[in-house]
Amino acid sequence: MEIQAGPLLSQIEFPSDLKKLKKDQLQQVCNELRQFIIDSVSVNGGHFGASLGVVELTVALHYVFDTPSDNLVWDVGHQAYGHKILTGRRKVFHTNRKYGGISGFPKRSESEYDAFGVGHSSTSISAALGMAIASQILGDFKKQHVAIIGDGAMTAGLPFEALQHVGSSRTDMLIILNDNNMSIDPNVGSLKEYLTDITTSHTYNKVRDDVWNMIGKLPGGRFHQKMASKIEAGVKGVVSKTSNLFEGLGLRYFGQVDGHNILKLVETLKDLKDIKGPKLLHINTIKGKGYELAEKDQTLWHAPGLFDKVSGKINKVTYDSPQPPKYQDVFGKSIIELAKANPKIIGITPAMPSGCSMKYMMEEMPDRAFDVGICEQHAVTLSAGMAVEGMRVFCNIYSSFMQRAYDQVIHDVAIQKLPVIFCLDRAGLVGDDGPTHHGVYDIAYMRCIPDMIIAAPMNEKELRDMMYTAQLDENKLPFVIRYPRGEGVMPDWQRPFEKMEIGKGVKIQEGSEIAILSLGHPGNFVVKACRELETLGIRPAHYNMRFVKPLDAEIMHEVGKNFKQVITIEDGTIVGGFGSACLEFFAEHGYQVQVTMLGIPDRLVEHGKPSELHHECGYDTPGVISTVQSVLASMSAQNQQTQQVF
Amino acid sequence: MEIQAGPLLSQIEFPSDLKKLKKDQLQQVCNELRQFIIDSVSVNGGHFGASLGVVELTVALHYVFDTPSDNLVWDVGHQAYGHKILTGRRKVFHTNRKYGGISGFPKRSESEYDAFGVGHSSTSISAALGMAIASQILGDFKKQHVAIIGDGAMTAGLPFEALQHVGSSRTDMLIILNDNNMSIDPNVGSLKEYLTDITTSHTYNKVRDDVWNMIGKLPGGRFHQKMASKIEAGVKGVVSKTSNLFEGLGLRYFGQVDGHNILKLVETLKDLKDIKGPKLLHINTIKGKGYELAEKDQTLWHAPGLFDKVSGKINKVTYDSPQPPKYQDVFGKSIIELAKANPKIIGITPAMPSGCSMKYMMEEMPDRAFDVGICEQHAVTLSAGMAVEGMRVFCNIYSSFMQRAYDQVIHDVAIQKLPVIFCLDRAGLVGDDGPTHHGVYDIAYMRCIPDMIIAAPMNEKELRDMMYTAQLDENKLPFVIRYPRGEGVMPDWQRPFEKMEIGKGVKIQEGSEIAILSLGHPGNFVVKACRELETLGIRPAHYNMRFVKPLDAEIMHEVGKNFKQVITIEDGTIVGGFGSACLEFFAEHGYQVQVTMLGIPDRLVEHGKPSELHHECGYDTPGVISTVQSVLASMSAQNQQTQQVF
Repeated sequence: MEIQAGPLLSQIEFPSDLKKLKKDQLQQVCNELRQFIIDSVSVNGGHFGASLGVVELTVALHYVFDTPSDNLVWDVGHQAYGHKILTGRRKVFHTNRKYGGISGFPKRSESEYDAFGVGHSSTSISAALGMAIASQILGDFKKQHVAIIGDGAMTAGLPFEALQHVGSSRTDMLIILNDNNMSIDPNVGSLKEYLTDITTSHTYNKVRDDVWNMIGKLPGGRFHQKMASKIEAGVKGVVSKTSNLFEGLGLRYFGQVDGHNILKLVETLKDLKDIKGPKLLHINTIKGKGYELAEKDQTLWHAPGLFDKVSGKINKVTYDSPQPPKYQDVFGKSIIELAKANPKIIGITPAMPSGCSMKYMMEEMPDRAFDVGICEQHAVTLSAGMAVEGMRVFCNIYSSFMQRAYDQVIHDVAIQKLPVIFCLDRAGLVGDDGPTHHGVYDIAYMRCIPDMIIAAPMNEKELRDMMYTAQLDENKLPFVIRYPRGEGVMPDWQRPFEKMEIGKGVKIQEGSEIAILSLGHPGNFVVKACRELETLGIRPAHYNMRFVKPLDAEIMHEVGKNFKQVITIEDGTIVGGFGSACLEFFAEHGYQVQVTMLGIPDRLVEHGKPSELHHECGYDTPGVISTVQSVLASMSAQNQQTQQVF
Repeated sequence: MEIQAGPLLSQIEFPSDLKKLKKDQLQQVCNELRQFIIDSVSVNGGHFGASLGVVELTVALHYVFDTPSDNLVWDVGHQAYGHKILTGRRKVFHTNRKYGGISGFPKRSESEYDAFGVGHSSTSISAALGMAIASQILGDFKKQHVAIIGDGAMTAGLPFEALQHVGSSRTDMLIILNDNNMSIDPNVGSLKEYLTDITTSHTYNKVRDDVWNMIGKLPGGRFHQKMASKIEAGVKGVVSKTSNLFEGLGLRYFGQVDGHNILKLVETLKDLKDIKGPKLLHINTIKGKGYELAEKDQTLWHAPGLFDKVSGKINKVTYDSPQPPKYQDVFGKSIIELAKANPKIIGITPAMPSGCSMKYMMEEMPDRAFDVGICEQHAVTLSAGMAVEGMRVFCNIYSSFMQRAYDQVIHDVAIQKLPVIFCLDRAGLVGDDGPTHHGVYDIAYMRCIPDMIIAAPMNEKELRDMMYTAQLDENKLPFVIRYPRGEGVMPDWQRPFEKMEIGKGVKIQEGSEIAILSLGHPGNFVVKACRELETLGIRPAHYNMRFVKPLDAEIMHEVGKNFKQVITIEDGTIVGGFGSACLEFFAEHGYQVQVTMLGIPDRLVEHGKPSELHHECGYDTPGVISTVQSVLASMSAQNQQTQQVF
């Protein structure tokens, strides 16, 4: 639904229109922009709190800097709705995150104002520094480069790597630290404490007070306190510089500034444009600013879904009958059941306690479940260290974020054969977040690692049984369980745990001519397809393989011997994926089998509902049906040819 | 060659023997240990400077801590020779890094004293914290956990992630920062400056002096300076705490201590054992300590090869005729040639300027070639930022280290289709460094990413032409060039650049019955094998594919139509690799071809000379010959069967 903008905002198509306004009109622009975001997200959905928090910053940046010539790099990017609305996309903003619509993140192919594509956190400083160094080499000293990064994103390792380089570089780049004390969930770790500490200027104040008090006690007393202001100035220079992590790393530090004071922001940014060298501006903002409920429960309102903007009631569909749970909740509740029985179980999540439902265990067993912040690398190596001491760690990381800890999986876990359990939530096409968040590569990048066990459940019960099996003492190897975003298929999912045989699949239906090998949840598409095909008198065999690695050799030999046509199906990239593993098996054992591979093709898949994307890629139920039919058609054409030859 | 240990060292098999000695004997143990390392490395090879630098620390740790019950986690691990020698491996130390011998790094399967396997840098704090938290959960409050990490390793993002968690945890773990101001090459970045700054206590001294001077100027003058010592104490408490990055992150900071003073180290470590909470001890050491030449040129003596320990002359084989260059030098010299012609070329290396030969460009074009420290993630995203501004970046990262920046390759480069050029040095089996350093997964983990171009040269000329082709303006996509460690095959390699057609291979020889598709340098094994097979009257066709992605469709169709037997060969994992890509092509186009895949099998390959390992894996020249022969034998057996049927 297209949204009506306020009187000032409706005159702004591009930042050039914004620049025509007087400073004292900017507060109204902010108000209208905030309202536009509330109006739009409440009926069209999307991220919410983050963009509300940076309304003033967004307006100030586009007012002061010369975009798109100057580069604004938004970290993560789910806070960039205001930026999109001010840069030519207000009228298409209602298509945000919809199939065929604009992306929920800055994206270079969408607008020249999006200097850098984002989605995963913590990349902005490196990217902006690269741009700044390039400009320097090209002799363009006018161009400005600004990275806008949250305090949550700052906890990752990458910005620390980048800050060291920024601090030793001679670029004029500006980093804006947008400090709201939140990621999606509240921030954790000592950097958070540290930022709070400099926020309250504790350090400097303490030195000043100490000096003040002591001088007051010297002979001469209060008279000397006048002189002490001189001392104060001297001490301040040294202390404020060295008490600050950023100054310590070679950046000039400015702040803090109230991130909701538009005039102060404009003034500060103008001043900073003229200051040479790398610098950091620390601003304080409130996530959800201007929408009271969102300010109060920032995690809930990070991306609340549709809601009534007046009452603040979040729309929830209600059902008459029990519905299948989300896979993440099956994980979140099953790990508690398992942990109660097995005292060696530990849960680890990098900053996704709500998203992966580890929050339940963190509430119930706070000593055994950890949110380590946006630190995937640390999460994995920490898990490895725990496994050394015999713990059974469930390390839950979204599939696309696991890309961040790939070396740690290989080097710290797999090479040492440590039995860490990786639960890859959001594996496969994730939907609205699009290509940065699709978990499409994990099968390919995991299965090339020796000694990995890789499983994908077809339903909630299988997820539970895989979790149960993985944590048994007899399992001595790293164990990956990948499962999709969203709901499963079993309303009555809370069944007793059963041990699975590792590397064993299951035959779902006998059949002839064609064998379908499915991995994970697309097995359900196959079941539905087979039901429809049955009505047409077509009955392929269907095997739910459960494990990509090790592959079930018994099933594979059975299929290799009895079928000339095989269809593989997976919610992952075809290149190097499960289908490819089947090809390798058939090649190794000399089976001459024609394999048709269904899955994610070798191109970027954009955003949209998972069902829309499964359909686009041709592996939903209709896709399976038409594939079976076209394979049969080509078989019959070949048979006719063969008969003609004889 | 087995080395004779000195009188004290020869009595030490295990740390329990060391503990029997008196404190005043420890210096002699250190001297003998140092001599043993010099004696051994000079004739048997290996890493040198790092282990010499930590001799006293190693002795002190095993003297004070209760290993193996207490956990020592050595970061990187090439400094752990002393540790190995003191923990049961003195008598096999001459097999260090040799085929079938002990590993050059700590390795859990080798000794219970090796608490954590290492090789890549910067993992120790996360791993030791995992152990410490596990001990806490298990109720073992006696067990000590120590991470020993260099200042170079500390520059990576992972330790920063870990420090935030350590600082907010309640564990008693100890981090020892071994500060020698070096990685393999000198350290870079502002953390280095920072550490130098706290080393000289600049901050605290400056505050103290300022206060002192000002108070001196107050009425009352010098009398007050006595009182100022009181102020000093107050200021010191605040300043030393807050001027310190580590204290800022919640760790107690101790140091610096002279890392070559064995008695001081023993005393300090004993004290620290009793101090609760997370803590960091900062020690200063000299890389190469005790061997003068190694102290002076630390990069050269990081791993010098064999040398005469008396004269310090490093053994270099001399040849009568020109020899092929190292691939790394072909890269290092060719990039300069290209950069002279193309002002947009930039070179980036994460801490491997010597190893990848970027040092030549850094010397000749210091404004356009960057060592960014042990920061692979930053290196890749920085490259992406530069590419946004139109630069042609050669980002050179060892294949196994590229695993550290996998998400950055996908998320920051590939999804945005930025034409960054990744040169993966050390791709394939690297030799002595073993499984942590083998670059075996890159084909599998790169080729699943859409829009990547992936090439592997068969010789020096092809590497040059691939580099030339990748930097041309007409190439709009990310471009991976993978090449092996060590020497190539062309003494006269410095030929003029020629443009290659992307995705085109070349037919090396016509043949019948079997087609061999090779990728990269193993093509040379195939050429030799074909020469020998020719003498036996066997002539397979041989195609040098050059590109894994895109595959040369023309060649693939030619092979699919004309051959029933195909052999693929690559210096990479068979699972998901180049052979797998060929299988996918044949499956997609309906060719019924029997493919035999040569390459690295699905298990860890240990260390040894590359030639030994190629042989073990069966893809050296004899391996190709025997594979061709066995494929022919199976074909003839099948033909006989078929004839019998008719």
